[in-house]
Amino acid sequence: MKALIRITLKSGVLDPQGKAIEGAVRGLGISNVGDVRQGKFIEVQLNETDQAKARAIVEQMCKDLLANTVIENYAYDLVP
Amino acid sequence: MKALIRITLKSGVLDPQGKAIEGAVRGLGISNVGDVRQGKFIEVQLNETDQAKARAIVEQMCKDLLANTVIENYAYDLVP
Repeated sequence: MKALIRITLKSGVLDPQGKAIEGAVRGLGISNVGDVRQGKFIEVQLNETDQAKARAIVEQMCKDLLANTVIENYAYDLVP
Repeated sequence: MKALIRITLKSGVLDPQGKAIEGAVRGLGISNVGDVRQGKFIEVQLNETDQAKARAIVEQMCKDLLANTVIENYAYDLVP
């Protein structure tokens, strides 16, 4: 099973990387772009077939290691 | 419309960040974790309601700016 984890800054937290991308996109001549936010994407291969156990592992990883829950949100999908 | 863009290293490209996460996860006592790959996740607000036009904008952004297509793949979803 594979976990696809997305870690994003909470709304309200300044995102200078996102702002830089927004500026660069406009520099490309694309004008109909609004807010841009950059986060992290992490793909984890899990040696676990049980959906509930896999979910517990990913939750623990996100909370204890991958995301700073003061300023970041995490979300994930489990795919076979 | 919002574009959710995932940029990942192509398979075969070394990913030291992913390896570091893998080591840290094992350090947490989680053993049933295999390969870990880190990528980027970018959320873009598009002022565009036409699906095809939005797709064209996102393709251009990914190819010209966000992804280094020599070593990276990109994928995206459009959500309302």
